[in-house]
Amino acid sequence: MTFVSLAARLADATPALSAWISMPDPLIAESAARAGFDAVTLDMQHGLHDPVSVMRGVAAVTLAGQPTIVRVPVGDFAMASRALDMGASAVIAPMINSVADAEALVAATKYPPVGQRSWGPTRAIQLQGIDPAAYLANANQTTLAFAMIETLAAMAALDAILEVPGLDAVFIGPSDLSIALSNGANVDPMRIDNQDAASAIRARAHAAGKRVGIFALNGAQARLYRALGYDFIALGVDAAYFALGAAAMLADARRD
Amino acid sequence: MTFVSLAARLADATPALSAWISMPDPLIAESAARAGFDAVTLDMQHGLHDPVSVMRGVAAVTLAGQPTIVRVPVGDFAMASRALDMGASAVIAPMINSVADAEALVAATKYPPVGQRSWGPTRAIQLQGIDPAAYLANANQTTLAFAMIETLAAMAALDAILEVPGLDAVFIGPSDLSIALSNGANVDPMRIDNQDAASAIRARAHAAGKRVGIFALNGAQARLYRALGYDFIALGVDAAYFALGAAAMLADARRD
Amino acid sequence: MTFVSLAARLADATPALSAWISMPDPLIAESAARAGFDAVTLDMQHGLHDPVSVMRGVAAVTLAGQPTIVRVPVGDFAMASRALDMGASAVIAPMINSVADAEALVAATKYPPVGQRSWGPTRAIQLQGIDPAAYLANANQTTLAFAMIETLAAMAALDAILEVPGLDAVFIGPSDLSIALSNGANVDPMRIDNQDAASAIRARAHAAGKRVGIFALNGAQARLYRALGYDFIALGVDAAYFALGAAAMLADARRD
Amino acid sequence: MTFVSLAARLADATPALSAWISMPDPLIAESAARAGFDAVTLDMQHGLHDPVSVMRGVAAVTLAGQPTIVRVPVGDFAMASRALDMGASAVIAPMINSVADAEALVAATKYPPVGQRSWGPTRAIQLQGIDPAAYLANANQTTLAFAMIETLAAMAALDAILEVPGLDAVFIGPSDLSIALSNGANVDPMRIDNQDAASAIRARAHAAGKRVGIFALNGAQARLYRALGYDFIALGVDAAYFALGAAAMLADARRD
Amino acid sequence: MTFVSLAARLADATPALSAWISMPDPLIAESAARAGFDAVTLDMQHGLHDPVSVMRGVAAVTLAGQPTIVRVPVGDFAMASRALDMGASAVIAPMINSVADAEALVAATKYPPVGQRSWGPTRAIQLQGIDPAAYLANANQTTLAFAMIETLAAMAALDAILEVPGLDAVFIGPSDLSIALSNGANVDPMRIDNQDAASAIRARAHAAGKRVGIFALNGAQARLYRALGYDFIALGVDAAYFALGAAAMLADARRD
Amino acid sequence: MTFVSLAARLADATPALSAWISMPDPLIAESAARAGFDAVTLDMQHGLHDPVSVMRGVAAVTLAGQPTIVRVPVGDFAMASRALDMGASAVIAPMINSVADAEALVAATKYPPVGQRSWGPTRAIQLQGIDPAAYLANANQTTLAFAMIETLAAMAALDAILEVPGLDAVFIGPSDLSIALSNGANVDPMRIDNQDAASAIRARAHAAGKRVGIFALNGAQARLYRALGYDFIALGVDAAYFALGAAAMLADARRD
Ligand SMILES: [Mg+2]
Ligand SMILES: [Mg+2]
Ligand SMILES: [Mg+2]
Ligand SMILES: [Mg+2]
Ligand SMILES: [Mg+2]
Ligand SMILES: [Mg+2]
Repeated sequence: MTFVSLAARLADATPALSAWISMPDPLIAESAARAGFDAVTLDMQHGLHDPVSVMRGVAAVTLAGQPTIVRVPVGDFAMASRALDMGASAVIAPMINSVADAEALVAATKYPPVGQRSWGPTRAIQLQGIDPAAYLANANQTTLAFAMIETLAAMAALDAILEVPGLDAVFIGPSDLSIALSNGANVDPMRIDNQDAASAIRARAHAAGKRVGIFALNGAQARLYRALGYDFIALGVDAAYFALGAAAMLADARRD
Repeated sequence: MTFVSLAARLADATPALSAWISMPDPLIAESAARAGFDAVTLDMQHGLHDPVSVMRGVAAVTLAGQPTIVRVPVGDFAMASRALDMGASAVIAPMINSVADAEALVAATKYPPVGQRSWGPTRAIQLQGIDPAAYLANANQTTLAFAMIETLAAMAALDAILEVPGLDAVFIGPSDLSIALSNGANVDPMRIDNQDAASAIRARAHAAGKRVGIFALNGAQARLYRALGYDFIALGVDAAYFALGAAAMLADARRD
Repeated sequence: MTFVSLAARLADATPALSAWISMPDPLIAESAARAGFDAVTLDMQHGLHDPVSVMRGVAAVTLAGQPTIVRVPVGDFAMASRALDMGASAVIAPMINSVADAEALVAATKYPPVGQRSWGPTRAIQLQGIDPAAYLANANQTTLAFAMIETLAAMAALDAILEVPGLDAVFIGPSDLSIALSNGANVDPMRIDNQDAASAIRARAHAAGKRVGIFALNGAQARLYRALGYDFIALGVDAAYFALGAAAMLADARRD
Repeated sequence: MTFVSLAARLADATPALSAWISMPDPLIAESAARAGFDAVTLDMQHGLHDPVSVMRGVAAVTLAGQPTIVRVPVGDFAMASRALDMGASAVIAPMINSVADAEALVAATKYPPVGQRSWGPTRAIQLQGIDPAAYLANANQTTLAFAMIETLAAMAALDAILEVPGLDAVFIGPSDLSIALSNGANVDPMRIDNQDAASAIRARAHAAGKRVGIFALNGAQARLYRALGYDFIALGVDAAYFALGAAAMLADARRD
Repeated sequence: MTFVSLAARLADATPALSAWISMPDPLIAESAARAGFDAVTLDMQHGLHDPVSVMRGVAAVTLAGQPTIVRVPVGDFAMASRALDMGASAVIAPMINSVADAEALVAATKYPPVGQRSWGPTRAIQLQGIDPAAYLANANQTTLAFAMIETLAAMAALDAILEVPGLDAVFIGPSDLSIALSNGANVDPMRIDNQDAASAIRARAHAAGKRVGIFALNGAQARLYRALGYDFIALGVDAAYFALGAAAMLADARRD
Repeated sequence: MTFVSLAARLADATPALSAWISMPDPLIAESAARAGFDAVTLDMQHGLHDPVSVMRGVAAVTLAGQPTIVRVPVGDFAMASRALDMGASAVIAPMINSVADAEALVAATKYPPVGQRSWGPTRAIQLQGIDPAAYLANANQTTLAFAMIETLAAMAALDAILEVPGLDAVFIGPSDLSIALSNGANVDPMRIDNQDAASAIRARAHAAGKRVGIFALNGAQARLYRALGYDFIALGVDAAYFALGAAAMLADARRD
C-alpha cells in the first residue's frame, strides 16, 4: 500500500470528487473508498461519526488506497488536530465566520511556527509509513485545512480570513449559505442568489491562491461545479448512494 | 408502529423482494428497510453479522416497519432459535442436505409438539407488542423456517425433506447449486442446467405446498424469478446497492 | 410508528416525567421508553453517553414511540446541534451562567433568523418522517432548548437569560444549586434555602413565559415538584431503577 | 479484590440467588453484581449476549466481587469451554436431553481425565489471581457444569444423566418443562403437574448428590423454591428489574 | 497493497513465525502485523475474538501487508468457512481427533469436488483484489486448513487423518498434548515424553507431505522448533508481548 | 478490591511511573495495570480514546487495583469533569498556556468554592466505594489536576499559572516544548536547551509547592527524570510496549 494524501491527489486530479460518509461503521468508509471516488470525507458535524469511528474509518480508507478528510463539529478544533493525528490528510471545519475562527483552525492544524498543533502523530506516521522527522518537516504542507464559508458573517470577513497564514482552502456550504441569504426562509443550494454568492466566494478565494471546495447533493450539481472550476467537490452522502442503488435494483426487478 | 411479519407480508405481496444485508451496523439494515424492499434479510453465513448485530439489526428494521429474516451459519440451529427470540420472523438455514438437517431446523424453530424450540422470546414479544400466550399459540405459524436446497445431496433427498412436518419453505442457493452441478468447475447461477435444476426444485416444493425462495444477484435475475413464480426473492447485497448508487452518482458527476 | 416530539408531549401531558439514562447501550434507553415515562433523557454530562450512543439511543426511544431529550456536556453547543440532527426533540445544556452562554445555546439549536444552527438534519428527518422544507419551517418551534440554571451566576443573570430570544425553557439542577448556595459545604437538593431558590427561579421563568424543568432524585421529590407546578420533571436515573427493582425482587425472594 | 467462585459462594450461601442478565453491556452485569445477588448469570441462549460481551461481563462482575455463570446456546459446548476460559466459574447448558448431551457438556468443561476440556485459561487465571498449575489442579472442582433438564426426553434419561461422571449439577427450566408436559398447549411454570415434575427431578438429583438449580420468574416463585430446598435460584431478568424499579418510582411520583 | 496469503508466505519463509492474538481490538492485530512476524493468527478458541472482531482483524492485518490465520472454536467448522470468506488465508481447527473431524474441516474449507465449502467469499475477494472465477479456481490451493493434533485419540487416528484428501497441514497443541499424555496430571509442553510425541507427529505428517505447525510459548521454544524442522511456529501471545515490553521498559526506568 | 487514587499512590511511591495508553480497548488498559506500573494514563489528546472507552478503561484499571489518569483533548475541560465522574483520580490537560486556561481547568475539576465542577460522580462513587457526602468533602484533595506546560506562552505565564488556586500539579510535554523552542525546526525532547527549560519549569513548580510530571519516551529518559526529581513520570506508550516485547520474543526465536 502506498499512502496517498489529499494534497497529492489534488495535484493529480482536479477537481477531486469525494465521497461523504455519515455512517460510523468502517466498512462504509471502505466501501466508498473502493467505489471510484478520489477521496473519502468522514462527517462528524451532521454525520454520525465520533472520534473512534473516525480513527477506524481512516484505516479502512487507507486500506483501500484513498485519502481521508474529516469534517469536524462546529468549533471542535481539538478534533481537527486529532483527525490529523489519526492519519487524515485534511480537515474541514464548519462555520468559520471570523478571522479568530480561522486562526483557531490554523493553530490546531499546523505545527509551529505557523500554528500551535501539538505533537503526537503516532498513528498517522504508522499509516503513512514515514518517520517522525519527515512528518514534522512536511505536515504543514501535506495536510490541508479547509475553512467552511457558509454565513453572512463569513462572507463579510472573507478577505481577512483568506489572509490568515496557514489556511489552505475554503469549502462552501451551499445549504447553510442559502438559509443565511434567505434569512431562514428556505434551504435551496441552487437558488440563483446562492450560486452567485458561492461563485463570488470562489473567485475571491482563487484570487487569494486558495483551493476551493463545495458540497454537491447529486451528479448534476457536481457537473455544474466542475464547469465552474471548483477544485474539490463532495458528492452526495452514503445514505443516498445506498438508496439510489437499492432503488435502481428494485426498479429493475419490478419492471415488467 | 405495527409489527409486520414475513408471513403477513407474503400474504399481501408475492413475490416479496428482500434486501440482503452483510454489513453489521444496524444503520445499514435500517437503510435497507427504508429503501423499498418488502423485507430485510441479515446474513450470518457469508455476511459479517454476529448475534449482537442481528439483535440490533432486527430492532432497526422493525423501527422502519419491515419484517426481518436471518440467514444463520451452516448447522447453527441454536442461532435459528435465537434469531426468532430476537424478533426475526423467519430464518434461512443453509446447506440442508438431508432429512436429519431439516428435522434439526424444525426442532430449533418450532415449539412442541412440532419441534423442540426452547421458550424465551422476551425480545420478540416486546418488539411485536403481543403477550406470551399469544406468541406461543401463534409462533409456529407466523415464523417461517426456510431450508436451503443447494447441493446434490439435498436434491436427492428433496422429497423426503419436503415431508418433514413443520418446514415452511425452501430457499434455493443458485451459486452453490451451480458449483455442485459442475463439480466445482464454475459458479454461474444462470447456467441452463442450473436453472433447470432450480425450476425442478421449485416445482416439487410448490407441489408439496411449500413457499419457494431464491437468491438473485441483480434485477434481471429477479425479473426472471418473478416470471417463474418464486414466492420470495432475495435481491443483491448491501455492498452492491452502495457501489451501484455511488457509481451512478459519480458517472453523472463526471460526464461532460 | 408516529414520531412524538417533546413539544407535542408537553402539550398533552404536563408535567411530563422523563427517564434519565446514563448507560450507553440503546437497549437501556429503549427499556426506559417502554417503562411508562413520558420521555427519555440521555445524559452526556454526568452519564456515560457519547455521540454514537446518543444516535443509537434516539433510534431506540423512537422505536418505542417516545420523545428523546439529550443533556450535552458543559459548553458543548456543537453537540446540542448534533443531538437535534440525530432526531432528539430537545436538548438540556448544563451550566448556562450568563447571557452569552444562553445565546450560544440558542445559536446552536435554532435556525436563522433566531440562531445559527447549521443545516443537516438528515437523520432527524428520516426518524420523524417529514420532508426537509417542513423540518426547516417547524424545527425552531418543535425542538426545545433548555438552559440549566444551577449556579449563583446564573441566578444573578436570570432575568437577562430569560430574555434571550429563542430560549424555550429552563431546567433547574438542584444538586449543583445546593452546592453553590452552601459554597461547597454540602449537596442536598431538599434544603429549604435550595428549594426556595428553585421556586424563585421557577416563578421568574414562568413569568417570562418559559417552561420549567427540574431533576428529582425519587418519586417523593417528583410529587413535590408536580405540586409546585413544574412542567417537566426528570426522575431518578437508570441505575436507580435497576437497583430498586432488583432489591425489591430480592427482598421478596428472601423474606420468610 | 478477592475472586469468589460460585462453588465457594454455594458453600456459604444456599440457596444462592443469581441475577439473570440478557442485555450485553457490561454495565448491566456490573449493576446486577452490585445489587445484592449472590451471583450473576449471563444468558446467551435467550438473552442477547455474545462471546465478547460475556468476556467483558465476566470482568465487570469480577470487579464487583461476585461469581459469574454463563448460560450457553443449545449445543454450544465450545462456548461452555470458552466461558470458563473467560473467567466464569460455572456454565449452564440448556436442553441436555440425553447421556450423550451430558457427556459432551462434561467433555467441554472438565480437564482430563474427567473430560476433554482444552487448555487455555489465560484470562481466567488473570482474573482469579492464581497460577496455571493451581488452575489445572483445581478447575475440575471449582468450576461447575449445570445440565438443564427441561424436556420429556431429559426426564426419561435423568437417572443415566445423573450418573455421568463430572456433571456437577442440574438446572430445571420450568417454562420449557411446562410446554413439554402440555405438549405445547401452554407455558406456565406454576402448573401443578409442572411443579410436581420439577420436584421429582430435584429429588432424584439430590439423591444422586448433585446440586439443583431452577429459574424463578419473581420473588414469590423464588420463595417457594427456597422452601422446597433448591440450591441455586435464578431470579427474574434484567429487563424485569429495570421495569419494576421504573414503575415503582413512577407510581410514587404520580400518586396524589 | 499487495495481498499476501499464508501459502505464499510459507513458500518464501520457512518456518514462518506467527503472532498469536487474543484481544479483539483490530489495533492489536494490526500492531502484531507491523511487529516483524511473518503472519498473524487470531484466536477464537482460547482467545477473546468473535466473528465481527475477526472480520475487522483480517482487514487490519491486510492493511499492514501480512497474512491472517484464524483459529476457530472446537467443532465450529461453519466459522472456518466464515473466516475464509472474511479474507483469512488459513484456519486452524482445534481438537481434530478423528477422520470424521478432519473430513468436517475439509468439507467446510474446500470447494467441491474436494469439500462442501459454500460460495460467498465477497469480502475475501475484495481484500485480495481478485475476481470470483479466479478465487474459485485457486482457493482450494491458496487457503490452508490446519488440523490440530493434541489428544491421544488424534494420535491414534493420525495416519488416517493424514490421508483425508484436502487437509493441508497439522498443528500441534503441545499444552493439551502434555495434559493428555499425563492424564491430566500436569501441563508442560517441554516434558520429554511430550516433545517425543510431538516429534513423532511431525515426522509422520511430514512423511505424508503435510506442513506442520506448533505453538511455542516463547523464543527459546521457537528456536527449538526451528531446529527440529517445523514449518509454522506460533509464538507467544499478545498479552505476553505487551507484558514483556512493559516490564523491560519499567526495569530500564527503575534501575539505578 | 480497594480503590487506590493517584494522590494516595504518590504519597507512597514517588516518582510514580505511569503507563500511557492510546488504544481504546479496556483490555489494553487492564494489561497495563497488571504490568507493574504505578498508575495508568488514558490518552484522549493524541491517543485513540473517546468518552466511552475512557469509562470502560477506568473500570478495567480499577479491577486491576491501580489509579487511572486521563489526558483530555486540548481545551476540553468538560471532558476533564467527565473523566473524574467516571472514576479517574487525575486529569492532565494539554496546552495550558495562560492563567485563563489554568482557571478553566480548575473550574472544571474542583467543586465550589475552589472551582465550578458540576455534581454527578455516580460512577466514581460506585467504583471507589464511598458515599456522596464523603466524595464531596474529599474530592478537591483526592483528585488531581495537572496543567501541561509545553509552549513559550506557558513558560512566560508560568508563575501566574502556578498561583491559580486549586491547581495541583504541572506536567511537562517535552516534545511540544522542543518544537516550540526550535520554532518548529525539530522535535527532540533530549535537546539540551529543552531539558534546561524543563528543569526550570520543574524548579519553579516545586518552589510553588506543586507536583511535577513529565513524559519519558523510554526507560533511559525515565531514569534521568527520576534522578532529576520529577514526581510523576509517564513512560512510553502501549504500542511501544507491544512492539518492544514482540521484537524481543522474535529476536530470541530467530537467533541461531
Ligand atoms: Mg453547513
Ligand atoms: Mg449457498
Ligand atoms: Mg448540574
Ligand atoms: Mg429452557
Ligand atoms: Mg489446544
Ligand atoms: Mg504535548
